Amino acid sequence: MKKLLVIGIGAGDPDYLTLQAVKAIGRADVFLVLDKGEEKSDLVRLRQDMLARYARPGHRVVQAADPDRDRAAAPAAYAAAVSDWRARRADLYQAFVRDELPAGGTGALLVWGDPSLYDSTIAAVDEVLARADQHFEYSVVPGISCVSALTAAHRIPLNRVGRPVTVTTGRRLAATAAADVPDDVAVMLDAHDAFAGLAEPEAFTIYWGAYVGTPDELLLSGPVAEIAPTIQRVRAEARARKGWIMDTYLLRRVHAAN
Amino acid sequence: MKKLLVIGIGAGDPDYLTLQAVKAIGRADVFLVLDKGEEKSDLVRLRQDMLARYARPGHRVVQAADPDRDRAAAPAAYAAAVSDWRARRADLYQAFVRDELPAGGTGALLVWGDPSLYDSTIAAVDEVLARADQHFEYSVVPGISCVSALTAAHRIPLNRVGRPVTVTTGRRLAATAAADVPDDVAVMLDAHDAFAGLAEPEAFTIYWGAYVGTPDELLLSGPVAEIAPTIQRVRAEARARKGWIMDTYLLRRVHAAN
Repeated sequence: MKKLLVIGIGAGDPDYLTLQAVKAIGRADVFLVLDKGEEKSDLVRLRQDMLARYARPGHRVVQAADPDRDRAAAPAAYAAAVSDWRARRADLYQAFVRDELPAGGTGALLVWGDPSLYDSTIAAVDEVLARADQHFEYSVVPGISCVSALTAAHRIPLNRVGRPVTVTTGRRLAATAAADVPDDVAVMLDAHDAFAGLAEPEAFTIYWGAYVGTPDELLLSGPVAEIAPTIQRVRAEARARKGWIMDTYLLRRVHAAN
Repeated sequence: MKKLLVIGIGAGDPDYLTLQAVKAIGRADVFLVLDKGEEKSDLVRLRQDMLARYARPGHRVVQAADPDRDRAAAPAAYAAAVSDWRARRADLYQAFVRDELPAGGTGALLVWGDPSLYDSTIAAVDEVLARADQHFEYSVVPGISCVSALTAAHRIPLNRVGRPVTVTTGRRLAATAAADVPDDVAVMLDAHDAFAGLAEPEAFTIYWGAYVGTPDELLLSGPVAEIAPTIQRVRAEARARKGWIMDTYLLRRVHAAN
């Protein structure tokens, strides 16, 4: 039986790798590395360094181009765009397992952050399994998510005592009515500074971070009404300088309901 | 300057430890270990094993009794009970930093799971700092949360594509009106099987896990209407057998709104 490992490598610091991930990397015969384009070359290098340090001698690396995704899709077409993109990812994984893994061999996919949080790898692997073209075992190694990295860097809890916390996307936040914004909400995948468009900026504190856990780490926090313009400027400058940005933030309503 | 490290050690598998946590453990001179009573001796042993393997020679371990917490407090008194308990935790930390850490020394607190998720350590340390009795640096090392461990074990994403996910407590879930239960919600600290009290059990799938990542791991999933009694029975048996249980689950509404 072939085996596929989906390995969370953490979101930023190479030392976010767990011992379980280190061991999983050391067990794999072949790695599939998807090329997302030059702009995130720091992330490519991070992965290469991990393989150089922890993969076993003689391992192979298979490169493939990550399918393009229509990120400009209108909200109504969003699910369809993601579904189409996931199917093309599944094609890649299917070919990887079929063509690159020997019988009894172990393949690995390295996933930034935690594979369970706003990542499509698990869903794409499920799609391969559903096609029933071939059978393989697979397992998932959890990783430090960008949300855990953010809160650790700010030394704050994610939730308040006994209270819920929501994780959502920038797109969702931007589409949420002011009264419905949760009291505590972590926001990912926000390309359009949704925090700056909050209808009640005076109601929230923001804890923002970019490149958390790396030498380029940027952290800013404060009342949204005061600090949002600073975050927008710092974010735009950093993005221009590095060519890409990966940021996350937590919004906390100052006067939470009960 | 004294230094305090709040180190997330992951929720279950000793190999959930990150390289960052291993290094942090290796840097500390003194560890404060809180004794939560005999019933969780597996967890005590897990911590002892970690220190034996990763702490530097000559490190010291300071034991203290974890303050009791009124877990039976009525909802109205819940916040007060937690606040009182946190203040007594802060007393312990304050004494630890003052009496056990030499000038320039590094102390460490090991936190189960991720220190940012339903854990009071950070808040208690903040309380020590607010007392301004003494100054010390401190930093937080993120860990694999029980939610990440749960979803990895079930090989499922936490969120659905582009959709939010909520993390809450069993107490909160039990107090939530049927229509207000989020479409995707991870539940922690549920001592009373709130999943079995859902007003619309046919509307949800549950992914449940106990002792995830350990040799005692239990995983069950399925439609709540069908599998809730099984989970209740398995949970009660496991708790009776081991004397304690640590479980988490994800509820996913079958027909999610848009």
